[in-house]
Amino acid sequence: MLSINQQKYLRSLTQKKFRDKHNVFTVEGEKIVQEVLENEYFTVKKIFGLVDWFNQNRQLLTGREYLFNKVSDKELRQISTLSTPNQVFVVVEKPAADFQKELLYGQYALYLDNIQDPGNLGTIWRIADWFGFAYVFCSKGCVDWSNPKVIQSSMGAFLRVKILQKSFFDLKNEVPDVPTYAAVLGGENIFETTFTKNGIVIIGNESKGISEELQNAATFKIAIPKGQNGGAESLNAAVATGIICGQLAMSN
Amino acid sequence: MLSINQQKYLRSLTQKKFRDKHNVFTVEGEKIVQEVLENEYFTVKKIFGLVDWFNQNRQLLTGREYLFNKVSDKELRQISTLSTPNQVFVVVEKPAADFQKELLYGQYALYLDNIQDPGNLGTIWRIADWFGFAYVFCSKGCVDWSNPKVIQSSMGAFLRVKILQKSFFDLKNEVPDVPTYAAVLGGENIFETTFTKNGIVIIGNESKGISEELQNAATFKIAIPKGQNGGAESLNAAVATGIICGQLAMSN
Repeated sequence: MLSINQQKYLRSLTQKKFRDKHNVFTVEGEKIVQEVLENEYFTVKKIFGLVDWFNQNRQLLTGREYLFNKVSDKELRQISTLSTPNQVFVVVEKPAADFQKELLYGQYALYLDNIQDPGNLGTIWRIADWFGFAYVFCSKGCVDWSNPKVIQSSMGAFLRVKILQKSFFDLKNEVPDVPTYAAVLGGENIFETTFTKNGIVIIGNESKGISEELQNAATFKIAIPKGQNGGAESLNAAVATGIICGQLAMSN
Repeated sequence: MLSINQQKYLRSLTQKKFRDKHNVFTVEGEKIVQEVLENEYFTVKKIFGLVDWFNQNRQLLTGREYLFNKVSDKELRQISTLSTPNQVFVVVEKPAADFQKELLYGQYALYLDNIQDPGNLGTIWRIADWFGFAYVFCSKGCVDWSNPKVIQSSMGAFLRVKILQKSFFDLKNEVPDVPTYAAVLGGENIFETTFTKNGIVIIGNESKGISEELQNAATFKIAIPKGQNGGAESLNAAVATGIICGQLAMSN
């Protein structure tokens, strides 16, 4: 059973300030929790699960059974951020920021300029995971990566692709010779671009695009051409990221 | 002021069965409502807006001022499906199903097999709009296209790209010589595929993919290759659609 204090603590973790204070984030669902528990890079602090889940996953908990807290279906629904809670909910320590700049000389990375929608950030993170990118960098104005909706829509990308909040200009100072590509209306047609072997693709805010100072600082400006009869004003940020990443992955 | 009956009616339209019964859907927000009112293909049945909106948009309403119902900020919040309501809310008649098969011989179209998430359906519709596709076809198991969240995330695509619910096999019988492409794991690498000039791209359900009978019926099977260090199991359905559409738009 959950104590009042536990309930309060877990509810508080839906807010960024409390996730920051405790330096943790939360992860839900049988499949993804299994992956977290098997991943040495992550430290699980607390586990809240159904008895059935515990009985079926004892081997995952060897030596750390004390982390487990039995909850009822009803309690799981109370603490869950999902519309359909799934057996288990864990509190995970945020990994220490780990920036290895040499990785940016062999792989691509993304720089996200004020991405606001949690679903978009998670979906973009998942794209970086699919294409095997080194990092996802976030500007200060991005939605917090540890937001439960971001984690949920990343579909496990947080287990493989590191995410760091970093100013674009700090990043550029650390790796001045890594080319950067800004996705903007009016840039060079990506289907005719010869992409470099490594680089950083900059993706802008859902409604405002990439801020002017970042546009000016980018090495290249690229664009996804509209179809002949195309009418839409823009593409969803995650969709645009996918199309660009597809092109550069193909040409490398 | 909204009457109790109007409130009841508008609230009921968040449900598919009442949208079907009245043969209408709802659209919100200043920009998109302007586009609807300017579009001859759509019949607006009722308008609920702030006085300020009315005063600034009188010319849009010439001859149909009687459609306008003044609402307060508070009332708009009550009827809105948005977290931040935006000035105006309209009830629009669903356009009659209009299938012109000859269009499928000049343009691409999408066939969606049980897409469940309203945000995904709207985002996919927006992709079809960007690339200038003729149609988006939906299987019976897809989320209803007139769901407010679908309309919202389509970003106006409903104004330009027709959407029809249609069985895949009926469609195939009507245009037997239009090639179909099924996006499946293990299909031909889309970056090495020579796409035909027209065709129908089939996109599967978010977790189950394309049903086996549709896979078997497709002319070609295609896939988005994973990056060298890629870890994700799959891509978001809308992102996958975007990457495929980018490739075929480029090669045409």
